[in-house]
Amino acid sequence: MKPKKLIVIGGSAAGAKAAARARRIDQAADITIIQKDPYLSMASCGYPYYVGDVFDDRNMLLCAPTGALRDPDFFMQTKAIKARTEVEVTAIDRKNHRVTCRQVADGKEEILEYDKLILATGAKAKMPPIPGRELHGISTLMSIQDADYLRALVDDEKVKKAVIVGGGLIGIETCEALQKAGVEVAIVECLPQLLSFLDWEMAKIVENHILSKAVRVIVDNGVSEFVGEDGRLTGVKLQDGEVLSCELAVMAIGVTPNAELAADAGLEVGKLGGISVNLKMQTSDPDIYAAGDCVEVKNLLSGQNVLAPFGDLANLQGRVAGENAMNGNSAIFPGTVQSGICKIFEFSAGSTGLSEKLARALGMFEIETVMNASPDKPGFMGAKMLISKMVVNKGDQRLIGYQCVGPGDVSKQVAVAAMAIQGKLTLNDLINADLPYAPPFSLAIDHFIASAHIMQNKLCGRMAGISCQKVREKLSDAKGNTVRPFLLDARSPEEYRQLRLGVGETLIPLGALRTRLHELPQNKEQEIICYCKISLRGYEAALILMAAGWKNVKVMEGGIMAWPYVREK
Amino acid sequence: MKPKKLIVIGGSAAGAKAAARARRIDQAADITIIQKDPYLSMASCGYPYYVGDVFDDRNMLLCAPTGALRDPDFFMQTKAIKARTEVEVTAIDRKNHRVTCRQVADGKEEILEYDKLILATGAKAKMPPIPGRELHGISTLMSIQDADYLRALVDDEKVKKAVIVGGGLIGIETCEALQKAGVEVAIVECLPQLLSFLDWEMAKIVENHILSKAVRVIVDNGVSEFVGEDGRLTGVKLQDGEVLSCELAVMAIGVTPNAELAADAGLEVGKLGGISVNLKMQTSDPDIYAAGDCVEVKNLLSGQNVLAPFGDLANLQGRVAGENAMNGNSAIFPGTVQSGICKIFEFSAGSTGLSEKLARALGMFEIETVMNASPDKPGFMGAKMLISKMVVNKGDQRLIGYQCVGPGDVSKQVAVAAMAIQGKLTLNDLINADLPYAPPFSLAIDHFIASAHIMQNKLCGRMAGISCQKVREKLSDAKGNTVRPFLLDARSPEEYRQLRLGVGETLIPLGALRTRLHELPQNKEQEIICYCKISLRGYEAALILMAAGWKNVKVMEGGIMAWPYVREK
Repeated sequence: MKPKKLIVIGGSAAGAKAAARARRIDQAADITIIQKDPYLSMASCGYPYYVGDVFDDRNMLLCAPTGALRDPDFFMQTKAIKARTEVEVTAIDRKNHRVTCRQVADGKEEILEYDKLILATGAKAKMPPIPGRELHGISTLMSIQDADYLRALVDDEKVKKAVIVGGGLIGIETCEALQKAGVEVAIVECLPQLLSFLDWEMAKIVENHILSKAVRVIVDNGVSEFVGEDGRLTGVKLQDGEVLSCELAVMAIGVTPNAELAADAGLEVGKLGGISVNLKMQTSDPDIYAAGDCVEVKNLLSGQNVLAPFGDLANLQGRVAGENAMNGNSAIFPGTVQSGICKIFEFSAGSTGLSEKLARALGMFEIETVMNASPDKPGFMGAKMLISKMVVNKGDQRLIGYQCVGPGDVSKQVAVAAMAIQGKLTLNDLINADLPYAPPFSLAIDHFIASAHIMQNKLCGRMAGISCQKVREKLSDAKGNTVRPFLLDARSPEEYRQLRLGVGETLIPLGALRTRLHELPQNKEQEIICYCKISLRGYEAALILMAAGWKNVKVMEGGIMAWPYVREK
Repeated sequence: MKPKKLIVIGGSAAGAKAAARARRIDQAADITIIQKDPYLSMASCGYPYYVGDVFDDRNMLLCAPTGALRDPDFFMQTKAIKARTEVEVTAIDRKNHRVTCRQVADGKEEILEYDKLILATGAKAKMPPIPGRELHGISTLMSIQDADYLRALVDDEKVKKAVIVGGGLIGIETCEALQKAGVEVAIVECLPQLLSFLDWEMAKIVENHILSKAVRVIVDNGVSEFVGEDGRLTGVKLQDGEVLSCELAVMAIGVTPNAELAADAGLEVGKLGGISVNLKMQTSDPDIYAAGDCVEVKNLLSGQNVLAPFGDLANLQGRVAGENAMNGNSAIFPGTVQSGICKIFEFSAGSTGLSEKLARALGMFEIETVMNASPDKPGFMGAKMLISKMVVNKGDQRLIGYQCVGPGDVSKQVAVAAMAIQGKLTLNDLINADLPYAPPFSLAIDHFIASAHIMQNKLCGRMAGISCQKVREKLSDAKGNTVRPFLLDARSPEEYRQLRLGVGETLIPLGALRTRLHELPQNKEQEIICYCKISLRGYEAALILMAAGWKNVKVMEGGIMAWPYVREK
């Protein structure tokens, strides 16, 4: 039997994985990776950490864990895969199962035949037609060349001020890298919040942490022009007219799938601009597969197609495409719950499933949300705070979304939630979840389980939760015809002295509340909102008031720790 | 309506939680905790860390996160719960709904009435009738008094040598605490391994780490006698006759449920000695609930009753018992998958679900296991090794067990697996799991997902895995009538120079293998076992050999990282 000919276009995450998997499935196949870039299998998610000097050896981005450089020799020797770098595929002739390639160096063309083709063409950084975008000093952070450029600027201490355009994952990570290098950084985001996978109030908590690092954060504002002198960037002009002076601007407003080659070949491309694939990662041509940032995949919760340009999914999809190209569609990639995470200074921020915002945008209104602020482990083991938001369907009580931010172990929380969402677990499963417990790792009741407990209390009517945002709205209601709610802080005077909202609240420590009920509004219809640092005592205070006859008692979810606004102290 | 009278016997984890939950459900109820010990709601899992000077402020074991001491005043003021400490319940009169109490101080007796009763009587340390057990210098680590005693010994540097009897969670944690305080420590375990919730080869990897800390580990050997002079311990005599000289012995061979009070009252007690409860945490008397270390609960995988004396489960069960006692059985505690974890020096060791050993003991033979050794995150972000073992049902491919050890982030791995087991996820769910990925937190293909990939390769016949143990058995087979397998190490010469098994293996780097096949045994029936550091290259080597016609090629799972025996280098 003639060996099967597989061509993989693109040799970064999805492509390299697809080729390697194909080789493992079929030792006889003739496998070729064609890659325009000079580098293969780059750890591109590591670029911000290289720029930020988390590590110094650039080769670590390009090497296998054993230290071997992943160059064409490596691919040939260890995997018997031909890797042709600095070669671009310019056209696919589907009828004749051929691709046209062009050497980047000399433009020389060549025709290669395939039995199966895998497109792993990735994505490119969005670069809108902003005036001045040709100036020197404007970069993205998509390629290792970008990383080299930014790292050199950082090493040479040539940049004093930088503007990051875009407050998503890459923007945030680049922000940290530059700030740590001593650069004065501003982030500009056209949406009303950073990290759009989070709900506003969660993103705001992250923003506050970024602000504490003397980074300027500008939201709800875009770039209207890049300003320069002698061909070099000197500033970024915003849509509101302000000019931020800087020598460097990093564009990080997202990516667009590289789907032109597929489209030109007549393959189906989705509404979002990604190559259409089925669960086998097969395009509209059964002999052509696609994987990675260039495709659209299904969100398992909404059922809708999404772009999910994440390195982990690229690898999983590549593995499926590589297997199916060799093995006749034995594998599937079912879709994504869009789990994501990033580190930002001492904080982490992660999400899985649907945010409240996204769920509502999808028309899912029968949902309930809850915020929880509590530590990741006992105080005596060096507890760090976690603030999370859980979203469940009211009907079947299924977990459909979970976000977590803070200095604590966010990664574990979000990973556990991702598994629970994929397992279609309901609140009843979560409230008695059996997670591994020992003091170095968690509280006896883990933060995630505690979140489920609060949700349960809320859903069965034991607790009327209210978000910090809603409380703030009520306080600043200008109409005057609504009665201002009575705010009860249930902490100790000493805690109040150190940290407080200062929005007109009344302090009555929980331990004294039962004997000081006369200090509360005696109109039992009056709205009373209870809270404490994390609103556990706030919850207990509310139960006491309800038992004493007050009819409109709420708990401010997450307490002071979840308050996203400026505090008095 | 007369307030409901609830009595909770025991005020540590389950009891305190049950009382607090009951109060939150019913503000009018008359709730009393009766506790023989002077302390309430102690963070008993924190004792080893206090002894080991991880923290210095003993109050942190007894205080709420706000710093308030959880004493009877605290319970009364914040929760309106009467907490009567140093009072023992000596009898339950079920017919008349009464308990008899006795003041520890003066023996004064008193009768209290209840509508509902919750037993949270905990467990006591096992103390077999070993001769000499009355000597000074023999302790357990069950109570805060024990913690005080050990901490004082450590602080005063009075103990030079200590013997820990029992290599379970408490024994291991105590070992670390004493070793760090400069004490020369030996652990004695009567089973053939430490940490019996792990399979032998996993426990052995932990043991090797403990040995590297100059701790002596003695397994398969018990204590026959405590040896002393003038009433003070001077040594521990083992069953094989050896005497370990020491001034301190800590007994940590497990706990026994405190079920006497329940048994005396005619309540049903299970075969394992724990109080029998249904899913509502109700005993055989519908007005009496029980929770925590004193009960037997169902293992969700085996369906059998188990003792699961863990602080997290005690809290969850207490919450259910407290709610049901007030609310008429609205809540259930479905059971446990027996997740557990502990820290030991730079390692962590965790498990969830069934070990292979336990599954086989339960008669579950249609299972498959796989070992995986790989880092927790990229090398450039400071990767640490994880070694894990996955157990699945062959039939429905459900995950039924997962163990993980190593210096990496074990806690997240085991938590994710615990959720997957509770979600009844199958291998197909795990191979495309969507976990949150960014370089500070994981590899692009997370260790857990990689474990599932290896399992998949094994189950579909793509990889014939063999455990290190089996390899060792084959090598040391004394019969002489079996042909010794050919061992192929697929790493580089440089790696081989630094680290190697030295059991007669042949080094052929993966990159050179295709051109050096003639160096292998030319009998294609000859068994060849391939490996590398973690056996990824070993797997690729095996695929090359199989494609070249060798018929009996295996991969040593987990590679050198999972080799539990002494290496040449």
